[in-house]
Amino acid sequence: MKIDLAEAARILLENDDYIILTHAHPDADTLGSGFALCRLLLAAGKRAKVVCGDEITAEYSFMRKGLEEPDFEPRFIIAVDVADTRLLGSVNESLYADKVQLCIDHHGSNIHYAQKLLLDSSAAATAEIIFDLMPLLGQTPDAEIAECIFAGISTDTGCFCYSNTTAKTHRVAAAMIDAGASSAKINRIFFETKKKSFIELEKLALNSLRLYLNDRCAMIVIMDEMFRKTGCTDNDCDLISAIPRQVEGVLIGTTIREQPDGSFKLSVRTHAPIDAAAICKKLGGGGHARAAGCRSSKPIDEVLDVFLAIAGAELEAAGIN
Amino acid sequence: MKIDLAEAARILLENDDYIILTHAHPDADTLGSGFALCRLLLAAGKRAKVVCGDEITAEYSFMRKGLEEPDFEPRFIIAVDVADTRLLGSVNESLYADKVQLCIDHHGSNIHYAQKLLLDSSAAATAEIIFDLMPLLGQTPDAEIAECIFAGISTDTGCFCYSNTTAKTHRVAAAMIDAGASSAKINRIFFETKKKSFIELEKLALNSLRLYLNDRCAMIVIMDEMFRKTGCTDNDCDLISAIPRQVEGVLIGTTIREQPDGSFKLSVRTHAPIDAAAICKKLGGGGHARAAGCRSSKPIDEVLDVFLAIAGAELEAAGIN
Repeated sequence: MKIDLAEAARILLENDDYIILTHAHPDADTLGSGFALCRLLLAAGKRAKVVCGDEITAEYSFMRKGLEEPDFEPRFIIAVDVADTRLLGSVNESLYADKVQLCIDHHGSNIHYAQKLLLDSSAAATAEIIFDLMPLLGQTPDAEIAECIFAGISTDTGCFCYSNTTAKTHRVAAAMIDAGASSAKINRIFFETKKKSFIELEKLALNSLRLYLNDRCAMIVIMDEMFRKTGCTDNDCDLISAIPRQVEGVLIGTTIREQPDGSFKLSVRTHAPIDAAAICKKLGGGGHARAAGCRSSKPIDEVLDVFLAIAGAELEAAGIN
Repeated sequence: MKIDLAEAARILLENDDYIILTHAHPDADTLGSGFALCRLLLAAGKRAKVVCGDEITAEYSFMRKGLEEPDFEPRFIIAVDVADTRLLGSVNESLYADKVQLCIDHHGSNIHYAQKLLLDSSAAATAEIIFDLMPLLGQTPDAEIAECIFAGISTDTGCFCYSNTTAKTHRVAAAMIDAGASSAKINRIFFETKKKSFIELEKLALNSLRLYLNDRCAMIVIMDEMFRKTGCTDNDCDLISAIPRQVEGVLIGTTIREQPDGSFKLSVRTHAPIDAAAICKKLGGGGHARAAGCRSSKPIDEVLDVFLAIAGAELEAAGIN
């Protein structure tokens, strides 16, 4: 059942002993939203902790700095930025898939699995919704909360660059900087720090860039051997996924990455009017209008053929040659 | 003589028949500031036009859309975002260098050449200062003015990413979006559109990336033949200049580009505590604390040696190995 901010705040103030689930392969929005909400609940006198199905890597460590990992029997399960229970990761999916009492999310593709859903698909990031909840929880942000929220919105907007960025997004950013967030530190972590191994992967990725469908579709393919050669992992691909759409004239930018098990993950970024979520839905995935994803276990040639057929049909339906 | 916003506004309302000079090799801040100020002066009932020493390329055309190029005898000369008369370009330098009555700028390295100087080195972009002037000129921004100002601040902050971005920068961005600026359109032009030829240049640039000074200094060198091979020009290098500083651990990122006459332009980006302007000043250039530039007519090996000696001394002075 969809609920509004006031109802979500009421629920959060009424209950206790919270587990906050993030999605697997966590990014700065799911973790920033989770840790910001966790800190807000602690400030409101509750017990709470963030639970993530995957390791939380070093670049996110500022988010949980100073937080303890209390041991308690959870009595209320929240999921943040998790559009589908399959995204919880296999362990948390089996533990919690049918037990999530409140989901806070900004994905229009959310499958409404939670008992209560606070969904705002106009929010650039789930962290923007946490910002909106804050005063209703009777809280003001300290520097730690401000940094969690800033990191979520900064990364989900490609540093305020993507078309999901609104005037409100900038206002929230300003408020978080005023509350003590070091935007320079956070942007440096997520946008201005490339490992040397990443630069090597970026070179290979650029070399693999090909154009299709009258140059309306650009594609980067990263095979597992490219990861092994450079020492990078799939987690290093976020900044690469932005590249294909940046090519002049391209409306559909796709990055295909081979996984260790030989299957493929597709990240699709589009410009208007092409709907990335619609394309990915046809391949069993989902996401936002301009950024979505899906997976395939077919061989790479087949993945390409199937994807290009779907992408070509979308372009044709939009009247674009 | 340095003046404040109120005095600058008073001068602008008292005079008429304005020529607004931008710097040569114009970027979105000098042009956005110039065209925003021009539109504000026109709205205030004045005659005004923007004069640039170089061609204004297609990506900036939205800034001057609908503006006429009136023919009149200038009676007041303004320069925007021009730190030094040498940056006006040779023709405008010879015409106007000693005649600039008002300079509006955010470069701490401004050489105080104008009769009156409105300088705010805490502003992320000169366009932020134009925003501050607006109400004092009795004006509110229309969508065209808002887009000029948004483009200036968005590009001078690397899309709100660099450490010069403040809470105020985000607030100005929000106000400009509210006033009708299409941030998605502008960011797409400046950050999400790479020509195919640029991708080729980027590959060559990444291949040229070398680390020096215990990996604290990263350097990209683009020789003229790389421009000729890819069909790019020096104007295409803005996005490349950001790359060297992004390498993990690097504090000084430098891009050296050979010019058609065989000389070199150096663009220097630093992380705190290294002062890019201080480094470039020793080579006869200038700029900001984290982004500055200079030129050299020496052979490339000598340019490298001299630069690395200066950069090494700066690192040593800062106690960094």
